[in-house]
Amino acid sequence: MAMAMTPRSQPALAADSSASRAQRALARYFGPSRLKVDPRDCESYRRDASEVEGLLPAAVVLAESVGDAELALRAAAEAGVPLVPRGGGTGKTGGAVPLLGGIVLDLRGLSRIKEIDRREQLAVVQPGVVLSDFRAAVHVEGLFYAPDPSSRVACTLGGNVATNAGGPRALKYGVTGRHVLGLEALLPGGRRIFAGRRTAKGVTGYDLTSLLVGSEGTLAVFGELTLRLLPPPESTLTLLVPFQRMAQAAEAVGDIIEQGLGPSCLELLDARASGGRAALLPALVGPELGAAVQGTEALLLIEVDGSEAACEASAGRIRSACRARGAQDDRVASLAEQRERLWDVRANMSASLRRTAKYKLSEDIAVPRRQLGSLLDQLERLSQRLAVRSVAYGHAGDGNLHVNFLWDDEAEAPRVQAAIRELFQLTVSLGGTLSGEHGIGVLKAPYLPLEQSADLIELQRSLKQSFDPTGLLNPGKIFPPGSG
Amino acid sequence: MAMAMTPRSQPALAADSSASRAQRALARYFGPSRLKVDPRDCESYRRDASEVEGLLPAAVVLAESVGDAELALRAAAEAGVPLVPRGGGTGKTGGAVPLLGGIVLDLRGLSRIKEIDRREQLAVVQPGVVLSDFRAAVHVEGLFYAPDPSSRVACTLGGNVATNAGGPRALKYGVTGRHVLGLEALLPGGRRIFAGRRTAKGVTGYDLTSLLVGSEGTLAVFGELTLRLLPPPESTLTLLVPFQRMAQAAEAVGDIIEQGLGPSCLELLDARASGGRAALLPALVGPELGAAVQGTEALLLIEVDGSEAACEASAGRIRSACRARGAQDDRVASLAEQRERLWDVRANMSASLRRTAKYKLSEDIAVPRRQLGSLLDQLERLSQRLAVRSVAYGHAGDGNLHVNFLWDDEAEAPRVQAAIRELFQLTVSLGGTLSGEHGIGVLKAPYLPLEQSADLIELQRSLKQSFDPTGLLNPGKIFPPGSG
Repeated sequence: MAMAMTPRSQPALAADSSASRAQRALARYFGPSRLKVDPRDCESYRRDASEVEGLLPAAVVLAESVGDAELALRAAAEAGVPLVPRGGGTGKTGGAVPLLGGIVLDLRGLSRIKEIDRREQLAVVQPGVVLSDFRAAVHVEGLFYAPDPSSRVACTLGGNVATNAGGPRALKYGVTGRHVLGLEALLPGGRRIFAGRRTAKGVTGYDLTSLLVGSEGTLAVFGELTLRLLPPPESTLTLLVPFQRMAQAAEAVGDIIEQGLGPSCLELLDARASGGRAALLPALVGPELGAAVQGTEALLLIEVDGSEAACEASAGRIRSACRARGAQDDRVASLAEQRERLWDVRANMSASLRRTAKYKLSEDIAVPRRQLGSLLDQLERLSQRLAVRSVAYGHAGDGNLHVNFLWDDEAEAPRVQAAIRELFQLTVSLGGTLSGEHGIGVLKAPYLPLEQSADLIELQRSLKQSFDPTGLLNPGKIFPPGSG
Repeated sequence: MAMAMTPRSQPALAADSSASRAQRALARYFGPSRLKVDPRDCESYRRDASEVEGLLPAAVVLAESVGDAELALRAAAEAGVPLVPRGGGTGKTGGAVPLLGGIVLDLRGLSRIKEIDRREQLAVVQPGVVLSDFRAAVHVEGLFYAPDPSSRVACTLGGNVATNAGGPRALKYGVTGRHVLGLEALLPGGRRIFAGRRTAKGVTGYDLTSLLVGSEGTLAVFGELTLRLLPPPESTLTLLVPFQRMAQAAEAVGDIIEQGLGPSCLELLDARASGGRAALLPALVGPELGAAVQGTEALLLIEVDGSEAACEASAGRIRSACRARGAQDDRVASLAEQRERLWDVRANMSASLRRTAKYKLSEDIAVPRRQLGSLLDQLERLSQRLAVRSVAYGHAGDGNLHVNFLWDDEAEAPRVQAAIRELFQLTVSLGGTLSGEHGIGVLKAPYLPLEQSADLIELQRSLKQSFDPTGLLNPGKIFPPGSG
């Protein structure tokens, strides 16, 4: 589907001439092995894991070094065309899509893990390293990198940092930005800065590291990342807890957090919606529990980690908290050993859902935890009222839910759009935020003013200008279209 | 001592006329209860806990509401004079000093704790709340606010956020910024923005919250802070471990971190220096151990928290790690119950040292942990070579040390200056940073280029301009004097 979620004012680029300018500028620096200009090679770069479709890029640079990335930025400046940095292309909001064409800078070739330092508990990596490769390399050294977004087998560390990616384990360990000590940033115009540090603490100057984290490729291209590592947890224990009523599950989530029971993950599946029941519940609970979860409105998938004794103790207290809200604990105990399968199902939930409909849009709003039940109830009602199919699941412990809208007929799209707008309005009215971990990208940009004031947006635009005066770096992202 | 650490180009303000302009502008908004213009009332505002002395301010505004703070900003803009926000005045680098005079905005009257929410585990506070008052109020609600800088009985939450304050417990819980979910910021020129959120996660737009944290009052005045709270640890256990050799203690610090033994605090005192031995060691170990620590070069003060069983287990493993590096464990066991006294001594270390000399300067560099021993050895050597008295102690688990220089005679000041410059050069050469938690303020501003590139400093200046186009907000801080 060619997404045009809202009318968007696209500058009428003289596509041919800017494309050839870009190609000529790049050809000065790159041979054919690293420079792709054939439309057949560039076509797949129009899209990422969102359903956003950009323009055909004039060229794709397959960078193999930080120097390549710098040259691509220089060429973009010389040609006066947009440059869009791209990692694994797993983003959900269109952040890596060349909305206005130009140059796509594919950073997957910058895939060196330059250093893993046990004593300092840090690693220095290039941005194109795939998350699961990094986690494996770190594991070999007896260390642990906590962030675990579901796209881990394809997403890159640079992309994770650019979106400040989350994942289930963010509940205990924090989102990606919490694990970034410093980074090298390439700025449009050829400046290269190192923000941050290699030390555990540091407050010298403004915290540009945090400003660059989550900036969705609009402020700089990352050259190198210094990431914090941790000692691995000794053991982990996973619980699957079904609830007859959603309200019980939502309250149990609040209780577990309020009582300080310290789970590392606390995931919720709303099994009321047809999509949840049909597509996800059987896969999640497995054949042996198929009958047992009849009538279940909600499932909690909970993990604790730490010493074996601490895990047992926490799990026991979490089970008591769930029982106090009406969970039937006999469904809890036997499942710990099925951990791998449970988390595989959880990681593949988005893809599984994707197969159940022709079109799918995933939102990732976050609300104060106490509002989870209210949000899910109102979502259920608005989905029925607007006759759209929605399935919600996600990181309930953080109040961060993935609300998926699914449809098969183009004619349904306007109803889905109406539902999305209502969802965002509802989220903001509950004290929540448009995005817990995916970012704003293209898809949520029109809705930014629902949450942020004009002054706040204007201030962010002016910061963008400090980094990127010509506005050629990943244009059309984050900021509402046509607003400045 | 009137500090002028390096020649500084002070714009020759027409002091009288700008002072009267400021007073006239303020008098439009404030009566005498909140506006102080008598030099006797303003005199004490020339200083903070650093040894920096600013100009006599034209006026001091005792703000009692966010509206007062906004009006003071407006008056400063109207009069075209600097405005310096101020909390408890406990900063160590001169961040709250009116270097160029103008208006001091005293925010201690904004001392309301507006909300403590157990379910969401957050609080909403005004910036003038004193840290220890806040910790007490949070404790009553069965919650825990982790940051614990030593100045806790006087420092304000706004000041903590402005400096991204640390403290011993930052090792486990992170510095202040890690606990800031969102904040209201008053910008020069009258804009009021809300950055951040009330939710556990959120990536909507750029992370302005983190940019404002640690910005030392140069980007905005804080109106309201939304802070993350935690469940309190069930119990804590404190160990005091003496080492015959500094090298042993430094290696033990590295081992404890590398082995993932998870202390909440890991403090080190270098007892080699005369200051350390004479002023601090007896107080720290108490009379009962006076003889036992003869010949001790270093002390580690270690705390673990968590369940009682977890504390016992961690403490046991930490003691083993210390023993493996040569600590005599029999000095460890009996001290757990003396926790209060130990931490009181630790919190008062700076003040105790202060009394031992006429002049004192405290630096707070941070280095990669593996460099701790090397840094301390080289500090010891350079202190002897330059004949200056130095005492080092601090948050060794984070590689963050407080290096105190002490002297009695003005004539020694140039030697101290030489020692400070060498210390910073050494720190940077070891991969460290000028400030682990105090900030740059006035005292370290001349040294910023030792650590940061001209491009990086220039970029930060341009961000400052986005927030504060006229440059009237807390001028003379962070950026090297005379450089732009």
